[in-house]
Amino acid sequence: MTQAIVYTADGIDRYDDLERAKRAAGTTWVRAETDDHDELQRVADVFGIHPLSVEDIHRDVRPKTELFPNHTFVLVKTASLRRGETTFDEELRTKQVGLFIGSDWLVTLSVSEMPAVEVVWDNIENGESRARRFGPDFAAYRVVDRVVDDYYLLLDDVETTIEAIEDGILGGPDQTILEALNAVRRDLLSFRKVVWPTREAVNVLARGDPDEVRDATEKYYRDVYDHLVQLADLTETYRDLARGARDIYQNAVAQSTNEVMKTLTVVATVILPLTLVVGVFGMNFSGGPFNMPELGWTYGYPAIMLGMAAVSFVLLVYFRREGWL
Amino acid sequence: MTQAIVYTADGIDRYDDLERAKRAAGTTWVRAETDDHDELQRVADVFGIHPLSVEDIHRDVRPKTELFPNHTFVLVKTASLRRGETTFDEELRTKQVGLFIGSDWLVTLSVSEMPAVEVVWDNIENGESRARRFGPDFAAYRVVDRVVDDYYLLLDDVETTIEAIEDGILGGPDQTILEALNAVRRDLLSFRKVVWPTREAVNVLARGDPDEVRDATEKYYRDVYDHLVQLADLTETYRDLARGARDIYQNAVAQSTNEVMKTLTVVATVILPLTLVVGVFGMNFSGGPFNMPELGWTYGYPAIMLGMAAVSFVLLVYFRREGWL
Amino acid sequence: MTQAIVYTADGIDRYDDLERAKRAAGTTWVRAETDDHDELQRVADVFGIHPLSVEDIHRDVRPKTELFPNHTFVLVKTASLRRGETTFDEELRTKQVGLFIGSDWLVTLSVSEMPAVEVVWDNIENGESRARRFGPDFAAYRVVDRVVDDYYLLLDDVETTIEAIEDGILGGPDQTILEALNAVRRDLLSFRKVVWPTREAVNVLARGDPDEVRDATEKYYRDVYDHLVQLADLTETYRDLARGARDIYQNAVAQSTNEVMKTLTVVATVILPLTLVVGVFGMNFSGGPFNMPELGWTYGYPAIMLGMAAVSFVLLVYFRREGWL
Amino acid sequence: MTQAIVYTADGIDRYDDLERAKRAAGTTWVRAETDDHDELQRVADVFGIHPLSVEDIHRDVRPKTELFPNHTFVLVKTASLRRGETTFDEELRTKQVGLFIGSDWLVTLSVSEMPAVEVVWDNIENGESRARRFGPDFAAYRVVDRVVDDYYLLLDDVETTIEAIEDGILGGPDQTILEALNAVRRDLLSFRKVVWPTREAVNVLARGDPDEVRDATEKYYRDVYDHLVQLADLTETYRDLARGARDIYQNAVAQSTNEVMKTLTVVATVILPLTLVVGVFGMNFSGGPFNMPELGWTYGYPAIMLGMAAVSFVLLVYFRREGWL
Amino acid sequence: MTQAIVYTADGIDRYDDLERAKRAAGTTWVRAETDDHDELQRVADVFGIHPLSVEDIHRDVRPKTELFPNHTFVLVKTASLRRGETTFDEELRTKQVGLFIGSDWLVTLSVSEMPAVEVVWDNIENGESRARRFGPDFAAYRVVDRVVDDYYLLLDDVETTIEAIEDGILGGPDQTILEALNAVRRDLLSFRKVVWPTREAVNVLARGDPDEVRDATEKYYRDVYDHLVQLADLTETYRDLARGARDIYQNAVAQSTNEVMKTLTVVATVILPLTLVVGVFGMNFSGGPFNMPELGWTYGYPAIMLGMAAVSFVLLVYFRREGWL
Ligand SMILES: [Mg+2]
Ligand SMILES: [Mg+2]
Ligand SMILES: [Mg+2]
Ligand SMILES: [Mg+2]
Ligand SMILES: [Mg+2]
Ligand SMILES: [Mg+2]
Ligand SMILES: [Mg+2]
Ligand SMILES: [Mg+2]
Ligand SMILES: [Mg+2]
Ligand SMILES: [Mg+2]
Ligand SMILES: [Mg+2]
Ligand SMILES: [Mg+2]
Ligand SMILES: [Mg+2]
Ligand SMILES: [Mg+2]
Ligand SMILES: [Mg+2]
Ligand SMILES: [Mg+2]
Ligand SMILES: [Mg+2]
Ligand SMILES: [Mg+2]
Ligand SMILES: [Mg+2]
Ligand SMILES: [Mg+2]
Ligand SMILES: [Mg+2]
Ligand SMILES: [Mg+2]
Ligand SMILES: [Mg+2]
Ligand SMILES: [Mg+2]
Ligand SMILES: [Mg+2]
Ligand SMILES: [Mg+2]
Ligand SMILES: [Mg+2]
Ligand SMILES: [Mg+2]
Ligand SMILES: [Mg+2]
Ligand SMILES: [Mg+2]
Ligand SMILES: [Mg+2]
Repeated sequence: MTQAIVYTADGIDRYDDLERAKRAAGTTWVRAETDDHDELQRVADVFGIHPLSVEDIHRDVRPKTELFPNHTFVLVKTASLRRGETTFDEELRTKQVGLFIGSDWLVTLSVSEMPAVEVVWDNIENGESRARRFGPDFAAYRVVDRVVDDYYLLLDDVETTIEAIEDGILGGPDQTILEALNAVRRDLLSFRKVVWPTREAVNVLARGDPDEVRDATEKYYRDVYDHLVQLADLTETYRDLARGARDIYQNAVAQSTNEVMKTLTVVATVILPLTLVVGVFGMNFSGGPFNMPELGWTYGYPAIMLGMAAVSFVLLVYFRREGWL
Repeated sequence: MTQAIVYTADGIDRYDDLERAKRAAGTTWVRAETDDHDELQRVADVFGIHPLSVEDIHRDVRPKTELFPNHTFVLVKTASLRRGETTFDEELRTKQVGLFIGSDWLVTLSVSEMPAVEVVWDNIENGESRARRFGPDFAAYRVVDRVVDDYYLLLDDVETTIEAIEDGILGGPDQTILEALNAVRRDLLSFRKVVWPTREAVNVLARGDPDEVRDATEKYYRDVYDHLVQLADLTETYRDLARGARDIYQNAVAQSTNEVMKTLTVVATVILPLTLVVGVFGMNFSGGPFNMPELGWTYGYPAIMLGMAAVSFVLLVYFRREGWL
Repeated sequence: MTQAIVYTADGIDRYDDLERAKRAAGTTWVRAETDDHDELQRVADVFGIHPLSVEDIHRDVRPKTELFPNHTFVLVKTASLRRGETTFDEELRTKQVGLFIGSDWLVTLSVSEMPAVEVVWDNIENGESRARRFGPDFAAYRVVDRVVDDYYLLLDDVETTIEAIEDGILGGPDQTILEALNAVRRDLLSFRKVVWPTREAVNVLARGDPDEVRDATEKYYRDVYDHLVQLADLTETYRDLARGARDIYQNAVAQSTNEVMKTLTVVATVILPLTLVVGVFGMNFSGGPFNMPELGWTYGYPAIMLGMAAVSFVLLVYFRREGWL
Repeated sequence: MTQAIVYTADGIDRYDDLERAKRAAGTTWVRAETDDHDELQRVADVFGIHPLSVEDIHRDVRPKTELFPNHTFVLVKTASLRRGETTFDEELRTKQVGLFIGSDWLVTLSVSEMPAVEVVWDNIENGESRARRFGPDFAAYRVVDRVVDDYYLLLDDVETTIEAIEDGILGGPDQTILEALNAVRRDLLSFRKVVWPTREAVNVLARGDPDEVRDATEKYYRDVYDHLVQLADLTETYRDLARGARDIYQNAVAQSTNEVMKTLTVVATVILPLTLVVGVFGMNFSGGPFNMPELGWTYGYPAIMLGMAAVSFVLLVYFRREGWL
Repeated sequence: MTQAIVYTADGIDRYDDLERAKRAAGTTWVRAETDDHDELQRVADVFGIHPLSVEDIHRDVRPKTELFPNHTFVLVKTASLRRGETTFDEELRTKQVGLFIGSDWLVTLSVSEMPAVEVVWDNIENGESRARRFGPDFAAYRVVDRVVDDYYLLLDDVETTIEAIEDGILGGPDQTILEALNAVRRDLLSFRKVVWPTREAVNVLARGDPDEVRDATEKYYRDVYDHLVQLADLTETYRDLARGARDIYQNAVAQSTNEVMKTLTVVATVILPLTLVVGVFGMNFSGGPFNMPELGWTYGYPAIMLGMAAVSFVLLVYFRREGWL
């Protein structure tokens, strides 16, 4: 679906003919969201957009800003998590939108619907006359700003997950936590590949390299850039926290094994010698004064039982002092 | 609450009208500490401060220095630890203050009370005529210096905690230590995100990039910069020490498990064979000369007991030599 | 085998004499694929190619772009995995091709057959008149693009392997997985040494440093460069995933050991004390009222059996609550 | 204590009055070693040294070179280990000396006695006329060279310690080794914070940035710089070796646990089944032809004993083949 | 031993007098290999070589290129492994050679015999007239090339060792492997300190910074530089492989412990309950109908034996399904 509007501070018009829209006075915005490559290419041809750029809209390429003689091409990606998927590349779902900023026109191309574009488009079309006072570089900023703002939601999700993992570990490590930890780690790796190049792409705009970005708009791109720097920082921080959670997991398992072993050792050390003792008095030696005369002593049995109780008690006191119990 | 003073080496006056304060001869300092966005914006408008900068005061952004045509914007953060909190972002509590340095005026904006600003303000207002001889860049230095000095207290806390953790590990590793170690690690990650960008922000001032920083003041900003380099170093060092403590913890647990296992193995290796022996003589074979004649031998019982004692002794000597006991 | 063609947008001719082919109007492409060093050197001499460059075709050197007074030398490598080999350098099989780009000629040298070269050659020779409209820099781009596209297949293989390893770990860690993990790790190390320098080599062309790369062709090299940046990213990501898989492996083993130990400890803790009890009543004390009178009590045996059952039950309930069962 | 000398190739004089010493022909060297801040400041005032620089002598700041209009300020630190201390900052004892190099004067300030300064001072005063031919930049080089030479002694100590630790691990890992390893790690972290900034500070002199460093002296500073590069390398190497020792420790403990477990398992696997067998023949079933007739067989006992011996033998052979014994 | 030759494309002469050799037409090469410092210094004085450079020949300094007004000083190191030594610094044996390249002379200084120098010297002296056509920069290249070529032999050794270690681990981890792994790690650390600075030193020559390196020779130094980049890459790769081997070792030990524990647990879980059962029937309760009447049942013994066999069978089937056997 391709739509075209031309707007000024005073008003806004819809156009069907792209050529006429391009020539009309005011800021022209052509928005095509379709998986029909030919339609995208037709729009591109009207504005002198290179076929390799249109191909980039279809393929999974890194976010970037490229400067052309008569326009600037900005490619950004929306990102959302899809927990539960099983192959790597489906976990972080990204969709890309190409923004082509001319001197007085903006073309936005994508292969599917982009809510971030829609919101800004509606804003300009329906109400906000303030936004119409600025040129295509400002409209592009609005779209990019929206895409970047949504990254925070994604990282909030990640943080919640890491906190849940940490709590889970301390409540008893198990296999599920291990898998959750690995999934977070992979999400962050994927997100990193979105946020770092976006930061570089927006920096080109914030520095005002392209002619199409007016001086007054640079400040706004710098604000988005600040956000992207912070998002990159957060991504590294969460990677570090995930590593920390892995360490806690490892240590918690080792600690648990250590305590299980102590329990086992205490039980074995107390019981096994006693079992030996009672085994001795279960032997069948007999005949003659040297063969187990104690079996016939009047207080033999009580004495041995008390002796065993005393030894157990001493051992248990010892283990408690050592911190094994 | 918004306050305004104008001072020279000779004296100091309070103003209610910001416009008049701005135009008055001498150094003008306007200080607004309020969560009322409109009040902050009103102050900003008087001095030509961009609305995006005022927004930065409200939001959690990285420390930075930004150069504007008629002033320099420095954003710094105070930092303090809040142990015992459970969500990540509440652990390191930061508060931000914006310093806007003009040619002969200083505006400080924050959403809550800033003791670091208050101390410098009182100093200029109440007593110290020396500070009044210098311009707004020096007053701003005094504020930044104070904020940075407090970072040392925070790192002292961290060091104390790491030392306590190390001592705790050697006294016997447990789950509490693991959690404390993880908390320190997270604190350092958060603090790092404060100190590194502050270093860059102060470096811009120390290099004298902004016109508002006089040559004579650069040396003072360089001194703060030296402190920030050292703080960044310390942060990395403490991160490394925390990693070291984690390693000791892991090794201490592994070592303990090893020793527990040795104890268990010694007990089992000595007792189990003896238990087998006494089991043998508890069997009920009888009838005929080949069925357990030893049970009837005169010295059978003493002989078997001595034999078992001898075997135990040999095994214990062996284990001691191997270092298992 | 050495072949030479000269083509223009209008047509194409084969030549046997290299000197004449070089002088003919149109784009000259000489393609030599032979392990006969002398033949390669003869071709090189015709076009003024340095003997050290010809040696590079034979030896295992890093991909690179070198600028010479009258031509540009690009060395790229095809890469494929050979699982099952046992020495390191045989694991990633690479083959190199040298592309020498002159003002109106292209020389491609390799010591064995290069499918990537063949495909482009056939394309120009047999059909595609479009490709003939462009010069030698475009033909070279087609070859490099093809080599780089094949890298994606290799990384797809690696990803499949890592996913299989992760699935394998969660289904039960064993030695085979460990070896597969190590092999992937080594493959990625080797591939990294191909992709990083290729990226740098193509960047030189994309920036348009050499005179032989026309302005219109730069855009195409930049597209290849984008792919190489992404491939370098993917390589790092897979390295990170391999590290993650190693961590899961370690943790899964530790977790399993922990659970095995819990089982053992539960069994020992329940059974050993009961064994002691029955051992007590297997002792042969007799004679006198204090020696095991309980053996003669009417309900002695049922009482002791019920007692033991009760103790077992209590212990099992306790262990289940502790999560050991 | 403050001392002043003025020397030329021809002779040397002592001065009490700093002002006169400064103005006298020849190289003036004023050396103050005192914890009396006022005395240091008085010396500084004579030579136009900034109060912030004097403060740096007192505080723990990083080594650095700062260029002032009329002199160059170099701050270096001596370093020595103090094993046995328990808090972090007491482990690596550092002392700082400030060298202020003017066109024809040198001021050295420190808060305590500096042997490195004393040695060079005595050398110039008592004997070596060669050193007197050069200016203050050469005398400063001599001091810095001496400070840096002593760093090698410190790293020799560290190397000896790491070697001792490695030997200790292979002889049987224990808790003491763990603590020694952690101490070395901390020492290296602290030393790193001395040697890296010193390297940068000396590099400024070796590049000849300050006017006070003559062309002929640069070569000497470059020699010190070479040493500092090597010291920085060594520090990283020792950090890596300490990490290696930690790995060996971990692996040695894991290996030991593995072997302990094998011993236990062999013992249990051989003895427990035999114990079961003898337990069987200790049961008291009787009456009727089906109840343990074997107890009455003529060769029952010898047969069962031989059977058990045979089973034990087979198991032991099996375990030896598996490498468990 | 000091030798001097002067050669041109046409011929070669030996000289005893260094001064005359220096002045003679053609390329002068003076080669001194002696631990007599004075002799080295005498040679140096003839060619205006700085005493600090001569000292560098004696001391263990990093490879480097230094530019002097009338010559270029290149210091490179041969490297060979000495397995079996026990202190760190003896492991990688390095020998250094200083190459001083003048406009038409070359001086090579070393404290012991250098085969790399000897081979090039013999080549020029005895046969190869081609090499005589080039100047001292080319002769120096030949020496450096030879030194660097030998580094490949050293890394081949390292690779062989790592492969042997990996094979060893999978065949059963033991202490010897741990020590071998640590030794390789240390070798690579030491070699890294040779190859990285050599790379930088050769880069200076390849870029043609020194006047003494002719344009035609730069290409040859660039070839050596390519090798050094590859050697640096290989060193990092082998370090990574050594880390990988350490991981496999750790995992193999953990895996083995896990399997040992499973064996033990299976044995204990099957045998201990049975032992309890037979213990029960070895108790001596008697008298009255409730005290162990089963001991007198006709099929008591066969029933209990069959029951125990059945339980064992069920447990073994269960463990096999769980993968514990
Ligand atoms: Mg997956
Ligand atoms: Mg996935
Ligand atoms: Mg935003
Ligand atoms: Mg930011
Ligand atoms: Mg990064
Ligand atoms: Mg980090
Ligand atoms: Mg928390
Ligand atoms: Mg949070
Ligand atoms: Mg301060
Ligand atoms: Mg950093
Ligand atoms: Mg630093
Ligand atoms: Mg570090
Ligand atoms: Mg292999
Ligand atoms: Mg190989
Ligand atoms: Mg492609
Ligand atoms: Mg890309
Ligand atoms: Mg990188
Ligand atoms: Mg990475
Ligand atoms: Mg581990
Ligand atoms: Mg300490
Ligand atoms: Mg301390
Ligand atoms: Mg020295
Ligand atoms: Mg060095
Ligand atoms: Mg370094
Ligand atoms: Mg390193
Ligand atoms: Mg050694
Ligand atoms: Mg040594
Ligand atoms: Mg070579
Ligand atoms: Mg190379
Ligand atoms: Mg590298
Ligand atoms: Mg790497």
